[in-house]
Amino acid sequence: MSWSQHHIDLKPRPRGVHLVTHEVVGALPELRDLRIGLAHIFIRHTSASLTLNENASPDVRRDFETWFDVAVPEDFAWTHTLEGADDMPAHVKASLMGPSLTLPIAGGRLALGTWQGIYLCEHRDRGGSRSLLVTLNGE
Amino acid sequence: MSWSQHHIDLKPRPRGVHLVTHEVVGALPELRDLRIGLAHIFIRHTSASLTLNENASPDVRRDFETWFDVAVPEDFAWTHTLEGADDMPAHVKASLMGPSLTLPIAGGRLALGTWQGIYLCEHRDRGGSRSLLVTLNGE
Amino acid sequence: MSWSQHHIDLKPRPRGVHLVTHEVVGALPELRDLRIGLAHIFIRHTSASLTLNENASPDVRRDFETWFDVAVPEDFAWTHTLEGADDMPAHVKASLMGPSLTLPIAGGRLALGTWQGIYLCEHRDRGGSRSLLVTLNGE
Repeated sequence: MSWSQHHIDLKPRPRGVHLVTHEVVGALPELRDLRIGLAHIFIRHTSASLTLNENASPDVRRDFETWFDVAVPEDFAWTHTLEGADDMPAHVKASLMGPSLTLPIAGGRLALGTWQGIYLCEHRDRGGSRSLLVTLNGE
Repeated sequence: MSWSQHHIDLKPRPRGVHLVTHEVVGALPELRDLRIGLAHIFIRHTSASLTLNENASPDVRRDFETWFDVAVPEDFAWTHTLEGADDMPAHVKASLMGPSLTLPIAGGRLALGTWQGIYLCEHRDRGGSRSLLVTLNGE
Repeated sequence: MSWSQHHIDLKPRPRGVHLVTHEVVGALPELRDLRIGLAHIFIRHTSASLTLNENASPDVRRDFETWFDVAVPEDFAWTHTLEGADDMPAHVKASLMGPSLTLPIAGGRLALGTWQGIYLCEHRDRGGSRSLLVTLNGE
């Protein structure tokens, strides 16, 4: 039975949806020591988010971004506008996707489905580096 | 303190929202040995999802599906259309609900509220059997 | 290694989005004994939800509510209307945000980002007191 925790600073990315599976897994060498467990991946921000989705076609990630901008538009009855037109939509989008992923670990690896990859959703125009805190627990 | 993991293959269901609490709980006999813990239920797909909602009226599940189809329409500026008109909306809907549920265990049972049930959201027209990986941890 | 579980009854709040970080953390004295772990905060209802977002400006919480009411309107093709016009939208909004938060614990505290706070999203006009079940696990 063991617990460990890792800070990961993701490199800055432009507004949009980005596949970060390798960047995250590469920072978690203890994964291979866990026969069974859970990985909790947490983003310490309120204008970027994490989700799991299709890891192959870049079109899918582009289409996510297109949909986001229609579903949570910049041109809306926002009152919180001091930090820019992209700020309040970013907060709503961040909560729609959520600030964390909990993923199963089996046999020393994340037990993702064949097509599942970790997405960083960067909802700000210039969000900068995003900080993750990963908590591993297992045996 | 114990960990266990179960694969559950849900029977195929048509596009829509389905109550699967009994199918899931029935596959987890170890639940009754846990005084306190967490159940992590993970779907290994990117076009179906899990959520918790009202376990009584089938109208609620039908209304979810109606809302999904308006909020994430097939007729939209999608670029990823090779796999059919239902595919890209399914990816977005899947991330809106999310790929996992983490549920508290108390006294050998899932500690759900009176009205809470586990929904499988099948976002594809013909998604086939869906595979879950459940991780139990507790004492 | 330890597990603990707490029931918290949040005081009733009007429809809208409310910052409840202090009310939740204040009910979890064991947090300070955990060097590393996870806090799972679960709401036992299907018409209220939990999310993490900006803990400073009340405008952000008001804008969430405005957006919710446009994205999931009361005036829609709902069939489940027996419990009032606010009921079915509340179910959908609840699943959009989700029924739980899993938060990392580090050094005896929730390891939230500077701007992150816990939101109770009350989606009903008169939801009454909302019941949380918090599960702490760590070492």
